Amino acid sequence: MSRWFIGIDLGGTFIKFGLLDRDFHPAGTMQLPVPSGGGPCGLVDQMAEGVGQLMAKHGLGRKDIAGVGIGSPGPINIEQGIIIDAPNIPGMKNFPLRDAVASKLDLPAVLENDANAAAYGEYIAGAGQGSRIMVMLTLGTGVGSGIIIDGRILHGAHGIGGELGHMIIVPDGEPCGCGQKGCLERYCSATYLALLATRRIQAGAASLLAEAVEHGQDIDARMVNDARKAGDVLAGEVWDAAARHLAIGCVNVCRIFDPDIIVLSGGLTRAGDALMLPLEAHFRRQHWKLTDIRTRLAIASLGADAGAIGAAGVAWRASRQD
Amino acid sequence: MSRWFIGIDLGGTFIKFGLLDRDFHPAGTMQLPVPSGGGPCGLVDQMAEGVGQLMAKHGLGRKDIAGVGIGSPGPINIEQGIIIDAPNIPGMKNFPLRDAVASKLDLPAVLENDANAAAYGEYIAGAGQGSRIMVMLTLGTGVGSGIIIDGRILHGAHGIGGELGHMIIVPDGEPCGCGQKGCLERYCSATYLALLATRRIQAGAASLLAEAVEHGQDIDARMVNDARKAGDVLAGEVWDAAARHLAIGCVNVCRIFDPDIIVLSGGLTRAGDALMLPLEAHFRRQHWKLTDIRTRLAIASLGADAGAIGAAGVAWRASRQD
Repeated sequence: MSRWFIGIDLGGTFIKFGLLDRDFHPAGTMQLPVPSGGGPCGLVDQMAEGVGQLMAKHGLGRKDIAGVGIGSPGPINIEQGIIIDAPNIPGMKNFPLRDAVASKLDLPAVLENDANAAAYGEYIAGAGQGSRIMVMLTLGTGVGSGIIIDGRILHGAHGIGGELGHMIIVPDGEPCGCGQKGCLERYCSATYLALLATRRIQAGAASLLAEAVEHGQDIDARMVNDARKAGDVLAGEVWDAAARHLAIGCVNVCRIFDPDIIVLSGGLTRAGDALMLPLEAHFRRQHWKLTDIRTRLAIASLGADAGAIGAAGVAWRASRQD
Repeated sequence: MSRWFIGIDLGGTFIKFGLLDRDFHPAGTMQLPVPSGGGPCGLVDQMAEGVGQLMAKHGLGRKDIAGVGIGSPGPINIEQGIIIDAPNIPGMKNFPLRDAVASKLDLPAVLENDANAAAYGEYIAGAGQGSRIMVMLTLGTGVGSGIIIDGRILHGAHGIGGELGHMIIVPDGEPCGCGQKGCLERYCSATYLALLATRRIQAGAASLLAEAVEHGQDIDARMVNDARKAGDVLAGEVWDAAARHLAIGCVNVCRIFDPDIIVLSGGLTRAGDALMLPLEAHFRRQHWKLTDIRTRLAIASLGADAGAIGAAGVAWRASRQD
């Protein structure tokens, strides 16, 4: 019986491949480089190559594979299985990646955006395992999100839902690249931490980071965290402000979705407890008192494998045809 | 074939009954008073009486009815079908209303909270008809909400989700009765309009409402709207502030759920275009620019029948056992 699923996670540099076994457990991952030439068909060939290697490694034939899931950066059209654009690969504009991969492999294929695929990976095999409702927030340049309710990824009626980083949490607040003001991601992304520290130093605040800023050096979230650990007051305040705003995002997620768990991922989570302890404190303080807190906050556990494992999970889900 | 469904909407004064016909259209509604005595069993008897009258009126027998849905004010336990408490009916604490009604009528029954049932009514037969994803915001004393995704009501993992009125939109903002600060409902409920106008008059602002406030008279949202229509500047500012904050709520709903439609109901919507025009303007202004606006804003169309019709729809949904 065909009960294995393969996930393909298209990144900027590497394509990752993941296998879900008959019992729906991750059975292995591997990666190949994104080919530097060959356009869309070169990419499809490389995806087929990786799938073939993964199958060979596990002694599987085509008949053992029930489906393939592909996670891709946006913008994509999930229903039509099309890459709307992929700036780093020439010729990808409006390319029907899903059907091209399906034809090449002679297997059912499904397309999902990479952030949702990663969230799905955490849902089935990572920090969110066993939950019914899970929300993932990815704290990087912006704040990405993936929302899974009873096994279904929330896409919205027009495929533009699930953008929790663009919830407005400050009326007429910081302008966001999306055209709104006061979006959540303007207050708790890694970018924001660096920006806020830089701004305050430029306005005259004392800080261990002042010299770097004065020399025109770009500072980043890790430098802010390092300065905070070294006792820098400004860096501590900036870090705490980000945790406080992220906690508002988490409270809102509870009010809206009442999930079992909020999984945090992305660069900022590498700070570990230095992020989670102030976040938990602000979360408790700002959470309503009508019920106890029932939603756990946790850091993602699959790391860079989440996307490939999750893409395989998305293929499994699609095969159920609910 | 049993293909009719009956909905029961338990209010403070009346119990409303609604019938969905074989083609899933509302076929009729009626109401009976909530009995003044008789406790929980008196209430169940009255519900059975109303169901019997509605069936008789439409020439239906018990075999024609596939199921009954009951919409009730909270707090309730939907999964267990229990009224946790009903302050206006003695003896209702932890009463298993769903099973009591099911036994009395010898029909399958299902319990839902009244706000969700009303949203479901609008979804299947009102302003949201034909939508896949619908969010309803009810603007009254507070801001209630009902969220329906592909025919399923969002309850959350612990039955406390879908509380959009308690999204925080102002960090450290107005204290809310729930224990949070800056909740949406603190900035756009009918209560808020009255409170903000009163506060500003007490702080010395000139207004047509000043005399009422000085005489200790409670002012309400309708008085604010009347003053606004009469050209009162303060009332106009307060009204506009509520529309602006409600628009933030609507933008957030788009970013989160990307619904086909946001349906507005409750007392404030009686203002009609006086609410919708400034709301639409603020919504357009605050909405992101990454995509066109794809979500319609509309006022609910079923009025007081929404709850009974929606409860019947919830029974239909439950019968599908998905």
